[in-house]
Amino acid sequence: MMVANEDGREGRAAFGPVPHGASKRRVVAWIWMWVLLVGATVVAASPLRAADPLPSWNDGAAKRAILSFVAETTSAGAPGFISSPERIATFDNDGTLWVEQPMYVQLAFALDRVKAMAPQHPEWKEAQPFKAILAGDVKGALAGGEPAIAQIVGATHAGMTTDEFAKIVGDWLATARHPRFKRPYTECVYQPMLELLAHLRANGFKTFIVSGGGVEFMRVFAEKVYGIPPEQVVGSSGVLRWDMRATGPVLMREAKIDFIDDGPGKPVGIQKFIGRQPVFAFGNSDGDQQMLEWTAAGKGAHFMGLVHHDDAEREWAYDRTSHVGKLDKALDEAAARNWTVVGMKEDWKVIFPPEGK
Amino acid sequence: MMVANEDGREGRAAFGPVPHGASKRRVVAWIWMWVLLVGATVVAASPLRAADPLPSWNDGAAKRAILSFVAETTSAGAPGFISSPERIATFDNDGTLWVEQPMYVQLAFALDRVKAMAPQHPEWKEAQPFKAILAGDVKGALAGGEPAIAQIVGATHAGMTTDEFAKIVGDWLATARHPRFKRPYTECVYQPMLELLAHLRANGFKTFIVSGGGVEFMRVFAEKVYGIPPEQVVGSSGVLRWDMRATGPVLMREAKIDFIDDGPGKPVGIQKFIGRQPVFAFGNSDGDQQMLEWTAAGKGAHFMGLVHHDDAEREWAYDRTSHVGKLDKALDEAAARNWTVVGMKEDWKVIFPPEGK
Repeated sequence: MMVANEDGREGRAAFGPVPHGASKRRVVAWIWMWVLLVGATVVAASPLRAADPLPSWNDGAAKRAILSFVAETTSAGAPGFISSPERIATFDNDGTLWVEQPMYVQLAFALDRVKAMAPQHPEWKEAQPFKAILAGDVKGALAGGEPAIAQIVGATHAGMTTDEFAKIVGDWLATARHPRFKRPYTECVYQPMLELLAHLRANGFKTFIVSGGGVEFMRVFAEKVYGIPPEQVVGSSGVLRWDMRATGPVLMREAKIDFIDDGPGKPVGIQKFIGRQPVFAFGNSDGDQQMLEWTAAGKGAHFMGLVHHDDAEREWAYDRTSHVGKLDKALDEAAARNWTVVGMKEDWKVIFPPEGK
Repeated sequence: MMVANEDGREGRAAFGPVPHGASKRRVVAWIWMWVLLVGATVVAASPLRAADPLPSWNDGAAKRAILSFVAETTSAGAPGFISSPERIATFDNDGTLWVEQPMYVQLAFALDRVKAMAPQHPEWKEAQPFKAILAGDVKGALAGGEPAIAQIVGATHAGMTTDEFAKIVGDWLATARHPRFKRPYTECVYQPMLELLAHLRANGFKTFIVSGGGVEFMRVFAEKVYGIPPEQVVGSSGVLRWDMRATGPVLMREAKIDFIDDGPGKPVGIQKFIGRQPVFAFGNSDGDQQMLEWTAAGKGAHFMGLVHHDDAEREWAYDRTSHVGKLDKALDEAAARNWTVVGMKEDWKVIFPPEGK
């Protein structure tokens, strides 16, 4: 649309000039049209101008880096312009979009499931790692390392259909509460990151989760909580088996790992599931390092961000020596390569959304 | 918006009534506004009413079934209404969106690659299946069955980076010609299916490819040719390996199968990559049977379609006994369960787009 001069001459041209000898009534009609059009433009444009798209972020280097990246990559003609289909943004989930302490949410789910299923498994009373879980000894249960975790995952995540699993997860999320924050896990998501996801989408970015967590676990809540549809969630997965039953087909979840979407698995998962290099990526741990490196290797403009958990008061403070969400090598690389490190303490006004949001 | 009576009274009410004693000029302005608004409505609505969204389809049961499914599932309040995020449509590629005779396009690519790479592999002169390929004996080369195919795929599809492979495929597609139609393979796509994809997307459906073909082969052309972006292409894949080189990271294509997206693998692939059951699915062979069964098992409205190659004159006629694209069991199931079978001969006015489109 052309911008009207004060006398409306330019504007008229867009609809064809007012003919010489036009009646006064016709001129009045043109003026009315301009009042309407200009009015509509002002109404449409003003919320964009006025509102801060990241109100939960303090003004600082991180917020400014994000806003200027989005502005520069979406302004037609700007040197960093990225066409809309290429605006792929990938986010880790645990510790980046929601809380991962005192343990991964999916592990809390698995432990609760062991307890809920125990009456049907009397043999668990004497068999590790189940015995330890039922005694409330999580450390002891996990002391068995990967084989123990495989047993827990196998018992709680497999041997059922995909529909059954999704229902179990949904039911659990509806009732489980985070042990410290006493609210549903789906409300232990980071409000500043929700705003970032929305800001990216409002600017034509397609937002994906790329997480070490189970893909079918995350898909249960990702659309409602993050606005990310199932087909944009990439994660770890177990083998599925097609089973045609008398009542119709089902997909059975087998107790066998199909894909681990962590570390070097993240760029592999991105290529497998998305098929394009991201231009924007956010993580919080060494498990995200290769995803950020893959993003940094892009030919055009790109943005790499890390959430740094440095706020023991409002959330947790951990990095180089943490068992969960260890951030060591990636923190060094961020410093060396000028990736954006978001300090929760300084950069975020609030951590979580209002309760019951 | 309210529909204006001829005197515009109803319409005025939408903006508040013209006050008593309004000047004549103001009344004229209101009339002008209505001329504009009604005019804009007519202009906006008429192409939708007038244009046939499937002009290359003959009027028949298949076309009517498609059009009424789309109309019924997208009309708010209709019993079959499907919300926009759930409008997942999946399409097989070979034989459904493009030609698969006299051999799968990707096999033609592999054979051409063997010939192009032969100077660097003098040992192929004496080793099968390469010797047969170089002698132009495709049948002999494929007589070795799966191990022979694995050797061909390994030699032509692995041992390079994902970027290198995409470039090789793109270069080949730019120059290779279909042996019968003497046009690029990317123009041996079915014009009626292109229209169907566009019609679905115009009605809020998200279109996916779910094919036994290689996912990284299809992603090279799917966006340009079908309007389907890489992240909506599901296919068979090889194992990828992250490799951090001095010049930066790459993803290496290994000579090892990761996933076969065919037969019962199609619903598995749909669950892995999309995470929702399709409501609309189209295939052409027994390899698509489980995808259609999975779609048919959905709780809401759903549509299952099969392209039946029965047009030897304009394309090919094959079904129950064909080596490529065998359509036998799925054809019986289509008859038993009232799936839509599209006969190329009767249902399609044209097969391919105009040359050079």
